[in-house]
Amino acid sequence: MVKVGILGAAGYTGGELIRILINHPDVEIVFANSESNAGNRVADVHEGLLGDTELCFTDQMPFDKVDVVFFCFGHGKSEAFLKEHTIPANVKIVDLAQDFRIKGNHDYVYGLPEVRRDEIRKCQHLANPGCFATCIQLGLLPLAKAGLLTDDIAVNAITGSTGAGQKPGATTHFSWRNDNMSVYKLFTHQHLHEITQTLNELAPAGAPRVVDTLNEGYEADGITVDFIPYRGDFARGIFCTEVIRLKNAMSADEVAKLYKDFYADAAFTHYSDAAIDLKQVVGTNKALVHVDVFGRKVVVTSMIDNLLKGAVGQAVQNMNLMFGLDEKAGLNLKAIAF
Amino acid sequence: MVKVGILGAAGYTGGELIRILINHPDVEIVFANSESNAGNRVADVHEGLLGDTELCFTDQMPFDKVDVVFFCFGHGKSEAFLKEHTIPANVKIVDLAQDFRIKGNHDYVYGLPEVRRDEIRKCQHLANPGCFATCIQLGLLPLAKAGLLTDDIAVNAITGSTGAGQKPGATTHFSWRNDNMSVYKLFTHQHLHEITQTLNELAPAGAPRVVDTLNEGYEADGITVDFIPYRGDFARGIFCTEVIRLKNAMSADEVAKLYKDFYADAAFTHYSDAAIDLKQVVGTNKALVHVDVFGRKVVVTSMIDNLLKGAVGQAVQNMNLMFGLDEKAGLNLKAIAF
Amino acid sequence: MVKVGILGAAGYTGGELIRILINHPDVEIVFANSESNAGNRVADVHEGLLGDTELCFTDQMPFDKVDVVFFCFGHGKSEAFLKEHTIPANVKIVDLAQDFRIKGNHDYVYGLPEVRRDEIRKCQHLANPGCFATCIQLGLLPLAKAGLLTDDIAVNAITGSTGAGQKPGATTHFSWRNDNMSVYKLFTHQHLHEITQTLNELAPAGAPRVVDTLNEGYEADGITVDFIPYRGDFARGIFCTEVIRLKNAMSADEVAKLYKDFYADAAFTHYSDAAIDLKQVVGTNKALVHVDVFGRKVVVTSMIDNLLKGAVGQAVQNMNLMFGLDEKAGLNLKAIAF
Amino acid sequence: MVKVGILGAAGYTGGELIRILINHPDVEIVFANSESNAGNRVADVHEGLLGDTELCFTDQMPFDKVDVVFFCFGHGKSEAFLKEHTIPANVKIVDLAQDFRIKGNHDYVYGLPEVRRDEIRKCQHLANPGCFATCIQLGLLPLAKAGLLTDDIAVNAITGSTGAGQKPGATTHFSWRNDNMSVYKLFTHQHLHEITQTLNELAPAGAPRVVDTLNEGYEADGITVDFIPYRGDFARGIFCTEVIRLKNAMSADEVAKLYKDFYADAAFTHYSDAAIDLKQVVGTNKALVHVDVFGRKVVVTSMIDNLLKGAVGQAVQNMNLMFGLDEKAGLNLKAIAF
Repeated sequence: MVKVGILGAAGYTGGELIRILINHPDVEIVFANSESNAGNRVADVHEGLLGDTELCFTDQMPFDKVDVVFFCFGHGKSEAFLKEHTIPANVKIVDLAQDFRIKGNHDYVYGLPEVRRDEIRKCQHLANPGCFATCIQLGLLPLAKAGLLTDDIAVNAITGSTGAGQKPGATTHFSWRNDNMSVYKLFTHQHLHEITQTLNELAPAGAPRVVDTLNEGYEADGITVDFIPYRGDFARGIFCTEVIRLKNAMSADEVAKLYKDFYADAAFTHYSDAAIDLKQVVGTNKALVHVDVFGRKVVVTSMIDNLLKGAVGQAVQNMNLMFGLDEKAGLNLKAIAF
Repeated sequence: MVKVGILGAAGYTGGELIRILINHPDVEIVFANSESNAGNRVADVHEGLLGDTELCFTDQMPFDKVDVVFFCFGHGKSEAFLKEHTIPANVKIVDLAQDFRIKGNHDYVYGLPEVRRDEIRKCQHLANPGCFATCIQLGLLPLAKAGLLTDDIAVNAITGSTGAGQKPGATTHFSWRNDNMSVYKLFTHQHLHEITQTLNELAPAGAPRVVDTLNEGYEADGITVDFIPYRGDFARGIFCTEVIRLKNAMSADEVAKLYKDFYADAAFTHYSDAAIDLKQVVGTNKALVHVDVFGRKVVVTSMIDNLLKGAVGQAVQNMNLMFGLDEKAGLNLKAIAF
Repeated sequence: MVKVGILGAAGYTGGELIRILINHPDVEIVFANSESNAGNRVADVHEGLLGDTELCFTDQMPFDKVDVVFFCFGHGKSEAFLKEHTIPANVKIVDLAQDFRIKGNHDYVYGLPEVRRDEIRKCQHLANPGCFATCIQLGLLPLAKAGLLTDDIAVNAITGSTGAGQKPGATTHFSWRNDNMSVYKLFTHQHLHEITQTLNELAPAGAPRVVDTLNEGYEADGITVDFIPYRGDFARGIFCTEVIRLKNAMSADEVAKLYKDFYADAAFTHYSDAAIDLKQVVGTNKALVHVDVFGRKVVVTSMIDNLLKGAVGQAVQNMNLMFGLDEKAGLNLKAIAF
Repeated sequence: MVKVGILGAAGYTGGELIRILINHPDVEIVFANSESNAGNRVADVHEGLLGDTELCFTDQMPFDKVDVVFFCFGHGKSEAFLKEHTIPANVKIVDLAQDFRIKGNHDYVYGLPEVRRDEIRKCQHLANPGCFATCIQLGLLPLAKAGLLTDDIAVNAITGSTGAGQKPGATTHFSWRNDNMSVYKLFTHQHLHEITQTLNELAPAGAPRVVDTLNEGYEADGITVDFIPYRGDFARGIFCTEVIRLKNAMSADEVAKLYKDFYADAAFTHYSDAAIDLKQVVGTNKALVHVDVFGRKVVVTSMIDNLLKGAVGQAVQNMNLMFGLDEKAGLNLKAIAF
């Protein structure tokens, strides 16, 4: 049994992680840390756990008793935490925040199994990808690898409200959000960093550079990911379209084959021959991808559950790889479907 | 033109009041007071007004320039406000809070036109009824008047999220409320005060007293209104059922006739021969009522838009009466329908 | 491995059953029968199965190859089917329709494990309870057994749209149902048959008879279940309140103890000390129950996922019992939570 | 008073038209024609009219008694109807279908007041624009007129379910559509015809031709409108983004000025300095437009209520112009807001 500790266990991702791990056949939750909720029963804080677990939150962090720690902090707090605390070297870390997703002076591996499963298997420290970043990358990876991203990419992605977390606010107020639609962080969403990093790493020599517009602006030399995030009128899921203008026309079958080949070994990412709709993945760790072609334009549809494949599910998938478990262990989840 | 001042104009009812009054043919808004938003354009704060008005919030209260003031404060603040401020005697007041709904040491008339239209016409100060209270009373009034409320009344009412106001909180957080259902203030909702007050006033001599269970508890002598409020998964509207056990069986037609007669002159309350659904009234100032009978049980269905007939629309209806205008002026609103 | 055949496999309950059984550790699906979809891939018809199964619908019914058959027909069709087909005597049947829920000239056991787990363990043919019936009974059983149902019972239950099945219609049209609320089959829902049957069986000698008002009308001698079903503005779940007037007052703790004792051994039905909300059970096979007391009035809140504990989940729970498996096998489902 | 006849009055647009016209100060509804509902009360068929009108559907078409006829037929039926019936020459026609939107062998004027208000004022026959077409054109017109559409245009537009009409179907089934997201008619929506027609008419000499990809395919010479329609999880409204790559960078203020100037005289279309959200327009005849600029990319957000500015409201606006009435008569509608 893999012994797990959870930090930031009272938030949305913390709750979702516990909901998965209590049914994981190879895992034991050793501690669920939350200062504000220390002593409270987990089932009294997180929906859907009553009758399933008597686990209580603790303000303790017995790192010597665990094999892996999940960081379910808000962004920026993981790095701060590590400056003030020492995690034993033999304890693995899965960080769900964005603190270590960009390569730098650290040893965290970016945890997108579709790209670097082998690295993940061997790593000690893992940076779990962002939700939008996962969905958009899975829509673009086969084209990136084939060197077909040669013009600016139009990305439109609609997210559920859980992406905004547990804290109530104006744009997650039911009276406002219900039946509403809006955009935010237009062309400036922070996930552009990790998306461009992966696309550039995967591209073959000679392919145009993808500009990190957040760092370099829109006039730098290269192609851009023009990403419009929408606030959707639902709680879970990300539905995304990516439109790519090819240099030379390809048939829909040719493009589809790139995707099928690329994801042939993926545990949870599948190409769908038919058009897809979001509720096919909600409640699961799956990503579905579909492609249409019009002239030289490729239209990709990609989608995930933002809390599962876009966060906690992928984190557990990564943990499974890091500990040599079945990649799907604990993740055979029933889709909500409707 | 009736000259209107609005206090608490930046809240939900304040916004809805402005949305109605800017199209009211006989009204001019003289000031919309809000300390926190003073100087801001109303259209930048309240949805749906861009292009319709250049009105700005003010921190001033020029009572000498208005004929009537609407109090759109939170509950309890109207009375407090009046202790610190003096409204000229010739200025009428319409208070949307609950501060003066219960008879006492004040001259506020309870503004339910279906019961006391004549009093309203003559009054200087008006206490506008609560949303649940309006919906439930309209479902029970004809039976109360006929002395047919002789046993405890089962009331189940589902409300939209706007009933909880503008301030985000745990039970109005989209991620929680979407697709969810729950109850609150079970058997203890504060509107029971005004409901029992009206039912007792309307009942003929000899009819059982309706107990104000909030004041007297559940063991006092008389019948009770057993009211379960539900948080609905929608933003607007209250849908209510009231079940009454009669002493002697009546036919559905006999009961329906009581309702048709009672509401024959009502401007906005109608009896429906067919079963009703909430979206028939959403966006309008209407109340619809329908009755079914099973043995000695009468099942009433009643419904309103909580922000219109349940708050602002009824306030404007009352203002129309107080100033001798057409009762429906400014209130011929298009139903949203879907 | 229990070998399973499914009839009516292309409908809503058929799909949900497949979604559960493909992850059930002790089950193999031998055939999924659907005339209209014969030859089609299950994953192309039912949401959420792409990538999980290559199973195709068949128009064959190889009963000799299975241990159990699930009837996922519409109501009335199970009995008709059995008149035209012969199921081998050694093959168990789980019927999800209402055809055999009322005792009569057949050997089907009514499959509510909280009441008759031992009978279920031994039975060959099982009639799976209705969704409303399950939720309402679980809210009333402890009181029934204690002989405390001595006055008419007010039941209000709000259901998700999936209760209306797969076929589009006027009251499941999104444009109509979204943000809407309405009632239907007022006081005449067909589940009253099975509810009254169980309540009368469970009641101690001397307790008032519960009238089956559908058969006997509202003037028969005894107490009635006054059931108002509401169409909710969500897809999954049933949220129910039951109000009971006791002869003699009891404390909330005393009533709660009845529930805790009654459900002490239940695999999926739990008493909650805190108030409950629907999304605690959506996506799971759980039922949650909570009780409040006001004077002599007991207010029960009970809730389930209508497709799981209210249909397919309970059917699998029953199958587990019938084959001596762990009662929870295949049913440790992650709650959707939000 | 303008005397109005309505054909196809029992459908969604027919109902919405009646909801507006019964409150229109200058209009009298002479007949509401529906074969299938002849004799039924309008208020029994269309939500939200109970208590407002006693009008009944008729199977008669007394064209000699009206000044104008609204065609609320499904697409294709207007032309067919006119082959079988003769409308007197003095009776004006407003056709809500797409039959006469494209110039050809007829005298119908395309009714987008923001482009051809003067032509509309004088016309006898009017083709009312499509919902998506209205929203997308209003987002692009100022750029088209300025000759700034020089590269392919990325259009993403999310529509409410009412766009799919009154007839229940698989993609408007509540259980499926609730919380779901999907795309349809990808790059092939029929409104591309009218959009390209207007853009080409408005463009200055020398501007690139906009290709009607439905007729000419994606390889024709010129620029394309790459339109992805999404099915939204709400009933009313269209929310649209349009991304345009300029040849030469412009400041956000410069682009905004184009829009403010273009819509300076528009009755219902307004430029918003702040970001916009859909519920600002739902329930109204307004269109709101907002612009952001990133490098050489212009991102336009445009939105309307699909049944009002996208259908019936615009039809009434056009009727007002055709009869010399105040352009806003009957259209000062209260926004639903939430």
